[in-house]
Amino acid sequence: MKQLVALDWGTSSLRAARLDAQGGVIEERSLPRGILTVPAGEFPKVFAEATAQWPADKDTLFLLSGMVGSRQGWKEAPYCPCPAGFGDIAAALAWVEPGRIAIVPGMSYEQEGVPDVMRGEETQVFGAMQLLGITKGLFVLPGTHSKWAHVSDGRIKSFSTFMTGEFYALLRQHSILSRTLPPEDGEIDVHAFERGVHYAMHTGNLMHTAFSVRALALFDKMAAAAMPSYLSGLVIGEELRSQHLSRIADPIVIVAGPGLSKRYELAMQLLDIPAKAVGAEATWRGLWGIAKGLEAA
Amino acid sequence: MKQLVALDWGTSSLRAARLDAQGGVIEERSLPRGILTVPAGEFPKVFAEATAQWPADKDTLFLLSGMVGSRQGWKEAPYCPCPAGFGDIAAALAWVEPGRIAIVPGMSYEQEGVPDVMRGEETQVFGAMQLLGITKGLFVLPGTHSKWAHVSDGRIKSFSTFMTGEFYALLRQHSILSRTLPPEDGEIDVHAFERGVHYAMHTGNLMHTAFSVRALALFDKMAAAAMPSYLSGLVIGEELRSQHLSRIADPIVIVAGPGLSKRYELAMQLLDIPAKAVGAEATWRGLWGIAKGLEAA
Repeated sequence: MKQLVALDWGTSSLRAARLDAQGGVIEERSLPRGILTVPAGEFPKVFAEATAQWPADKDTLFLLSGMVGSRQGWKEAPYCPCPAGFGDIAAALAWVEPGRIAIVPGMSYEQEGVPDVMRGEETQVFGAMQLLGITKGLFVLPGTHSKWAHVSDGRIKSFSTFMTGEFYALLRQHSILSRTLPPEDGEIDVHAFERGVHYAMHTGNLMHTAFSVRALALFDKMAAAAMPSYLSGLVIGEELRSQHLSRIADPIVIVAGPGLSKRYELAMQLLDIPAKAVGAEATWRGLWGIAKGLEAA
Repeated sequence: MKQLVALDWGTSSLRAARLDAQGGVIEERSLPRGILTVPAGEFPKVFAEATAQWPADKDTLFLLSGMVGSRQGWKEAPYCPCPAGFGDIAAALAWVEPGRIAIVPGMSYEQEGVPDVMRGEETQVFGAMQLLGITKGLFVLPGTHSKWAHVSDGRIKSFSTFMTGEFYALLRQHSILSRTLPPEDGEIDVHAFERGVHYAMHTGNLMHTAFSVRALALFDKMAAAAMPSYLSGLVIGEELRSQHLSRIADPIVIVAGPGLSKRYELAMQLLDIPAKAVGAEATWRGLWGIAKGLEAA
């Protein structure tokens, strides 16, 4: 198989990996060059920087996923509508340089006239499916904008976005609660986090539950140091509350780095919902799978 | 009856009114001197400014409600716990100057160990009850932090806070949606507002529905000028979704200025929920009612 260099190029960060013929990572890099930091026209330069000094020949394939395929990215890769599988994505690559550099399209899903979109997470879902050897289930990709994807027969049938990480940041930094919360988040306080998840699941509506951070502070009912964890539990609990998880048969697949993964696993344990976790390697596996498909085609 | 000067002194604004013996407003003033603008120790000065040149004798009573009674205000007036009626509030005034200047306490309500608080809205609820001649019902006081108060037998039994106005402002000014929304809100677009209310009521969870503003923009499915109204509909719809309004027998009482009142009335019409509205005069009526009670006592 051709040599593959994989890039996960998002809004705020850029990660690159050189993979071997089995999809294993030979070397990995991370640059603070998310697409928001890249002026129009400078994508080739940042791309060269991200892949510099890596052995490449004319057969090396570069596959990119994430917001790099958006209108504000290097080259727009139109969304693939749901339902879509690995093959649909691979067939809709946006080639920056034919045969050499391609961007994986994002996906869209429309319900009752209201669209939803993702870019990069589709690749992670397909990669996680390959890593786990499954073709169905509910996948959650937590983050600034969490995605929940329903998969069956190896295809993403539907998905929805929850602005969980962004709501946390808005409340943390810009709301009245910012006066109550300590300047740094610190280590997770598991008890406070679980209290937040529990309160969100049972009382619901973040616009109401978030105010409890302030009220608990007014009555000295919670230590300030515990409050970021409590608020994190509130937003993650609010996200989980909408998923009707008790109706899900298979374990939920969490695709995330260790920090976020731990929080979602904790919350699901608390709610007695089986889950398994896959790390950031899902992206590399997804891009490697697309490359293999191209070769076979 | 003594002459009454009433002050509604909140976080971001200060309103004052001189009332006649029947509770009618003789004269009203508004100053941009919310408590956040008043350094500790300068409350007497701002108070004098707000009431300057108004005829007052030694019998004139000054009654203040709102955040002026908080720890950051002029003098802390401890919260009255629910359930509480007019008499409980009047009996718990914090006197700044005995017999002359008093601050109305706020109220607190605790459920499952989680407290909630309000200051100023309790006075509006009691005033609205007097204006409408009712002693029970569900009252909503929309705003930065909306309050929903359940009243029976003339007492506030419970209430809850929704950070509706603040969530709107956070999403409007600080979230990713701020890039999509036009710089000014403009006139309300009733159709877009109602679409937002409808989507929030049926799809729910603002962390999910808010993202639709971005997705609708990406697919050119909504004019940018309509989006602030749509987002306003989303947050107000989210607030209404949590109230289980179909179970409420009496018309909901909306206590608000004309702009917000119109939005809540529109939303409730759309949901086929009977409502009636009372304006800012509820505060004056509430403070006048307390003054009358003091006189009778």
